[in-house]
Amino acid sequence: MKCFINYPKFSDFPIENLPYGVFSTKKDPSHRIGVAIGDQILDLKEISHLFNGPELVNKQHVFKESTLNSFMGLGPKAWKEARIRLQDLLSVNNTTLQNDENLRSRAFVPQSEATMHLPATIGDYTDFYSSIHHATNVGVMFRGKENALMPNWKYLPVGYHGRASSVVISGTSIHRPHGQTLPVEGAAPAFGTSKLMDFELEMAFFVGGPPTKLGEPISIKEAQDHIFGFVLMNDWSARDVQKWEYVPLGPFTAKNLGTTISPWVVTTFALEPFIVDNYSQDPTPFPYLQNKDNFNFDISLQVDITPQNSNTATTVCRSNYRHLYWTAKQQLVHHTITGCNVNPGDLLASGTISGDTSDSFGSLLELSWKGTKPLTLLDGSQRKFLQDGDTVTMNAVCEGEEFNVGFGKCVGTLLPAKKLDF
Amino acid sequence: MKCFINYPKFSDFPIENLPYGVFSTKKDPSHRIGVAIGDQILDLKEISHLFNGPELVNKQHVFKESTLNSFMGLGPKAWKEARIRLQDLLSVNNTTLQNDENLRSRAFVPQSEATMHLPATIGDYTDFYSSIHHATNVGVMFRGKENALMPNWKYLPVGYHGRASSVVISGTSIHRPHGQTLPVEGAAPAFGTSKLMDFELEMAFFVGGPPTKLGEPISIKEAQDHIFGFVLMNDWSARDVQKWEYVPLGPFTAKNLGTTISPWVVTTFALEPFIVDNYSQDPTPFPYLQNKDNFNFDISLQVDITPQNSNTATTVCRSNYRHLYWTAKQQLVHHTITGCNVNPGDLLASGTISGDTSDSFGSLLELSWKGTKPLTLLDGSQRKFLQDGDTVTMNAVCEGEEFNVGFGKCVGTLLPAKKLDF
Repeated sequence: MKCFINYPKFSDFPIENLPYGVFSTKKDPSHRIGVAIGDQILDLKEISHLFNGPELVNKQHVFKESTLNSFMGLGPKAWKEARIRLQDLLSVNNTTLQNDENLRSRAFVPQSEATMHLPATIGDYTDFYSSIHHATNVGVMFRGKENALMPNWKYLPVGYHGRASSVVISGTSIHRPHGQTLPVEGAAPAFGTSKLMDFELEMAFFVGGPPTKLGEPISIKEAQDHIFGFVLMNDWSARDVQKWEYVPLGPFTAKNLGTTISPWVVTTFALEPFIVDNYSQDPTPFPYLQNKDNFNFDISLQVDITPQNSNTATTVCRSNYRHLYWTAKQQLVHHTITGCNVNPGDLLASGTISGDTSDSFGSLLELSWKGTKPLTLLDGSQRKFLQDGDTVTMNAVCEGEEFNVGFGKCVGTLLPAKKLDF
Repeated sequence: MKCFINYPKFSDFPIENLPYGVFSTKKDPSHRIGVAIGDQILDLKEISHLFNGPELVNKQHVFKESTLNSFMGLGPKAWKEARIRLQDLLSVNNTTLQNDENLRSRAFVPQSEATMHLPATIGDYTDFYSSIHHATNVGVMFRGKENALMPNWKYLPVGYHGRASSVVISGTSIHRPHGQTLPVEGAAPAFGTSKLMDFELEMAFFVGGPPTKLGEPISIKEAQDHIFGFVLMNDWSARDVQKWEYVPLGPFTAKNLGTTISPWVVTTFALEPFIVDNYSQDPTPFPYLQNKDNFNFDISLQVDITPQNSNTATTVCRSNYRHLYWTAKQQLVHHTITGCNVNPGDLLASGTISGDTSDSFGSLLELSWKGTKPLTLLDGSQRKFLQDGDTVTMNAVCEGEEFNVGFGKCVGTLLPAKKLDF
């Protein structure tokens, strides 16, 4: 497939990718939907009239909205038609857009001139815990080797409801939080700034399709029709706060201080060339969870830390989405099995994606093994946990022989704690 | 205060209450904001032009919307002005509405002709665990007497993020869910319908005021400005699912099958005459959590069970909001201490409100002490947990000498499990 927009062979955003996002520019601060192509954004508001296939001809308004929720809500037939139409319009063989200089000048915006926003209004956000290596590592550290994996872990994708309001777009800085911790086991807790700030390398998917009804679970056969596409995620975590608060009802203020996602939503269609075998599951899950077709992806993941006032990024983790034990379809199906309804724009995250080697662990908690093995960065400084001013940059890319499908970056800087004026 | 609408002396909805809700009628199916007065609803869309005080004269549009979010977002000065104006307009001494027959006929709708809807779009829903008696009871049952209250419980209001999409309005039926359980400790889990369906008697408050910013905690001094008003809540729970899934990340599918709230939001102003001392806290909380003024309320709570095909309701629990250890202000402040942002329409629930006597426990789990002490209903049938067809009716009322301030009912019926067609 050849595109009339030029980009390097291994661009994150070739014509085979076409991820969706929401952007604005200085000239036009309204939020609008775009598709990344090379280093450009194609503004779908400007070309909404060109979506004239049977699924979209009467739904062109979804491309003029300020979030992707309505488009996500249309379902896979519409998503596929949009993708085929976009590939057609961007092809060297099609002159409609290519030769319309006026339209081209309005419809393309350099990514460097755009500000990205949350792609959707996130109704509900859920975080799973689906990497067996991560769950085992955390279990060993907090509960010992014998109780590392809880008895339920291999029977169901463990997950919990997260905070939707604190999901923010890549580039948003996060302040080191105040909170309660237990510095000395068995003593009284302390109040102050978190000492153990961490990142968590995750990916997440946006739910699509029409809203489902309360009391009507999604079957594994229907699940893919409700998976619109994927983003990268940094689930910032205050480990000391988490340890003190999380028993018995789970993580709460240790996580709702901010969760960063990458701005471009890569569709399941774009990931299809990178499908790999599902993680082998033993015991065999209950029938409702049996994901017989492959829905696992070879997505290379990387985490860099750049200290304040430094230009030197140190890669501290190389992992891969394929390490997940539970598939996104299994996560969604389990989420709804007791009847929970889902809406387009809901966000379901994977949990920290750790591999099986110590350089593939997806959090500093694991990489520094609870602070016992500090990492040395390229500038010579050491890290057990994040320091003020550290910028955490995550990257995700599917590497092909002819093209890549990239996610772009998920970036955030940890700023010093604000002074509390109370 | 005398109202020109007649109602019995101890109506739930006297002129001293004036709770807000969202309703529709057969004649006009649009969702609109109303205030309950006696057995009537005053349609605020019809009288929006009468809110002509300094806070509201330019914001009358909030009364024409289909949810309370915008009105909630205005903050306490506007809420107070609206209340004073409504009491004025409803007073026998004011002829504006009283003597305008045309307007009166449009503005008043009998509650019996109205369908109630969720009062707000709930961005995020959080459930606390703030009754010391409930937390102790559950702790004793699941972890033994020694570990009943976790070490963190008296230092912070334990809570977790719940599922906003599955919060439904009173009157919505809930299906008994399918899910995973562990019938025999140490054996393999089972998949099937939940055998241990329960209610949880809770109250919840809606957040108000402008959206707060990520990274900016709410202080205890500011907290009341972000508390719009209260509703009753039934947090339906599948106990067997919960027990198997909740370690280590908390309740998930055991709760997202449905959470019912009562339709009328009773404002903090209306509750003021019923303020009582806060629960005595030992140890003294950290300064950020010190709620020095009283923000606890004497609200009588009652739960009835009515079996299928029966007209006989049995009261199974009489409790009171005042039993809560942590105040709503403390809940909100703790929620934001690490920087979590909140929005008008967010819902924060108390957790099950159990008293200190066995007839004041707010769930069947506690009332039947894990099924060991079945309750006998008035029709002679027994309950350890809910049976298909059971209707659970909750009531809440502040009982005064001159007037009551009531919440109305929070009702739901447990229907049999649907057949899964997969």
